[in-house]
Amino acid sequence: MTESDLSRLADLAVSVGANVQPGQIVGVSAELDHRDFVHALAASAYDHGAKFVDVSYIDPLVKRARIEFAPDDSLEYVPPWYGQRVLALGEQRAAVITIRGTTVPGALDGLDPKRAGRDQLPRVKETNVVVNERTVNWTIVAYPTLPWARLCYPDLDDEAALARLWEEVKHVSRLDEPDPLQAWEARLDELERASEALTEAHLDAVHFEGEGTDLTIGLLPTSIWRMARWSTVDGIRHLPNVPTEEVFTSPDPMRVDGHVRSTKPLVLSDGTLVRGLHVRFEQGRAVEITADEGAEVLRGRTQIDEGAARLGEVALVDRESRIGQLGTVFYETLLDENAASHIAFGSGFSFAVETDEDRARVNESAVHIDFMIGGDDVDVTGLTREGERVPVLRGGVWQLTTVNAA
Amino acid sequence: MTESDLSRLADLAVSVGANVQPGQIVGVSAELDHRDFVHALAASAYDHGAKFVDVSYIDPLVKRARIEFAPDDSLEYVPPWYGQRVLALGEQRAAVITIRGTTVPGALDGLDPKRAGRDQLPRVKETNVVVNERTVNWTIVAYPTLPWARLCYPDLDDEAALARLWEEVKHVSRLDEPDPLQAWEARLDELERASEALTEAHLDAVHFEGEGTDLTIGLLPTSIWRMARWSTVDGIRHLPNVPTEEVFTSPDPMRVDGHVRSTKPLVLSDGTLVRGLHVRFEQGRAVEITADEGAEVLRGRTQIDEGAARLGEVALVDRESRIGQLGTVFYETLLDENAASHIAFGSGFSFAVETDEDRARVNESAVHIDFMIGGDDVDVTGLTREGERVPVLRGGVWQLTTVNAA
Repeated sequence: MTESDLSRLADLAVSVGANVQPGQIVGVSAELDHRDFVHALAASAYDHGAKFVDVSYIDPLVKRARIEFAPDDSLEYVPPWYGQRVLALGEQRAAVITIRGTTVPGALDGLDPKRAGRDQLPRVKETNVVVNERTVNWTIVAYPTLPWARLCYPDLDDEAALARLWEEVKHVSRLDEPDPLQAWEARLDELERASEALTEAHLDAVHFEGEGTDLTIGLLPTSIWRMARWSTVDGIRHLPNVPTEEVFTSPDPMRVDGHVRSTKPLVLSDGTLVRGLHVRFEQGRAVEITADEGAEVLRGRTQIDEGAARLGEVALVDRESRIGQLGTVFYETLLDENAASHIAFGSGFSFAVETDEDRARVNESAVHIDFMIGGDDVDVTGLTREGERVPVLRGGVWQLTTVNAA
Repeated sequence: MTESDLSRLADLAVSVGANVQPGQIVGVSAELDHRDFVHALAASAYDHGAKFVDVSYIDPLVKRARIEFAPDDSLEYVPPWYGQRVLALGEQRAAVITIRGTTVPGALDGLDPKRAGRDQLPRVKETNVVVNERTVNWTIVAYPTLPWARLCYPDLDDEAALARLWEEVKHVSRLDEPDPLQAWEARLDELERASEALTEAHLDAVHFEGEGTDLTIGLLPTSIWRMARWSTVDGIRHLPNVPTEEVFTSPDPMRVDGHVRSTKPLVLSDGTLVRGLHVRFEQGRAVEITADEGAEVLRGRTQIDEGAARLGEVALVDRESRIGQLGTVFYETLLDENAASHIAFGSGFSFAVETDEDRARVNESAVHIDFMIGGDDVDVTGLTREGERVPVLRGGVWQLTTVNAA
């Protein structure tokens, strides 16, 4: 990493990711050891005319102290000003940048998973409101930290591991292109064609089939396939995730049946690693969750509310994904979910359906937990309302003619 | 410093300083490199039954980026949620702990002092409201950091400097006593007797006299001398500063005349060092501010509003002060102001007078800047309404008989 890498990554987050406008407040969510990147982000945001950069630093070890020592009846408590700040950022039409890249791996190791599962912070429910109202231009970006690099490349020494993570993050963020903005526009054009073709096919369901997987996910009558070319109510374009490689929608939370095997490990927001996950669904509900590691914490999360054991998202990723091509397991959902097709327990996206009737049917929950189920050897097939089977992904390649036509 | 020093200092802040009650929210203000102490505070607060520990981390280098790069018309802006959080902590009857001990000395070096002076954060005006309404049990505590230790003892190596700062902070915090709480009670008893004797003397003014100093500070008709034995509206006792050695009141902001020399350097909230300060007052207003170093930034601060060039506080410190006895210059107002008698530009304390009429006369300002003017060779004399001169401090010793009587 050079000074220039740091400021180029910050500029990408500010200009391509959040697309900060002159006069905007910029909310930043960071962990303490993201500070060098935060300083680069602040400089870049002010350089783009930001009015104020409001950094909220999160400390996983303060969360640990809470789970370890706080009175049992207080663990769900969230001070009202946490959500009020998020709503105020929406009212002010702010930009919001969230930084990912673990700084304290295993921060919650050895704690009671039931107590850990009851503290949802730093996530607050008001974030869903602002996202659905599209009042902020927001982005989540990856920043390479040493603890994260050690997790990804345990066989390398510290210096080599961090250098490799920087190289890979630059590659998947398309910072190694002569013109990263143009490279993003080209990739987003492809994803937009895929999403349009899927939406126009008016599928009734999608079927995932591969070793250990035979899962049918029903869609809602007006499910729309979305990709990351977003804009706010005021027409400010932004990329919610940098990087992003996915096309996604919200399924019918009552019509998911079959069983599925995860194709990548997943890391929960508290740092718990879940490996070798198997889930069986009946009428939309996960009725059986097993794993080689981490099953208990995940089961705890899916019991938080009625919607936590149902699906809020199904997302398709083709083999052109730079993350999938690398083959690295990043132990970080922001990157790993863009390596492969995935589904998510919990909250769905009201903007991914067209009618109020369907919006009322989109899954609701305090959690949103993505896990990867796709890959080159998992076929994805669309089921039309007429009972036809339409190939969607074979060997990781889009089968929808319009996608590859352009 | 040992693990035990850290947790004993945290316990002192939680139990003696803020006096955290079961079920309370505890707001903590810290800089990023205070994190080890924050974790100890969180553990101790939860151990005392706290409902939630809400840590607000402040990053001086984000402030630097603002002053360096933000649009010129935005520098006074404060997001509304900053003040709302402070007011909400009051409404919730929270405890509040603020940590002092510089982590990034010179964070604002080389910046335009006029731009720097316009950004008042992290101070927000709502803090004055909550302090005056006495709705939170709050404390400010000193935590030894390496950058701070280097500043205090430039001739020692890092390890020795930090060890010495820990020893001195433990000493002035009375953590080296077998029973720190009892040691504090004994010292607070003395300060309470001094404050009562001063209040009962109904002085019209106090006169400071020594080399370079001949200053008369008029008091308000109902000025009450206060010390740090405070309690909230709900009767929760707390120590606003740990350590504390002072007896103070709010003077008449229109009746200060003469000239005064600072007896210790002072460090402004932005890190600017002011040495060799001389101030001349006419009818309450500082009409001349000179210094060997830092005069320009201080002059800028005193021009922020009408009250910034007038006095909000006069405080007396006797030679029993452990801080004064050490003779160390800590470059940190929390400690240095307790080494010697001092006065403060800016906001006064409405609780330091008795009538609404006098409350309306107490100085108001967005700033509060203490500077030290006392010492063993500065005599403090009370002037009664009858024109009598009553010795108050001679050679740093209380001359009010009731103080030493007990």
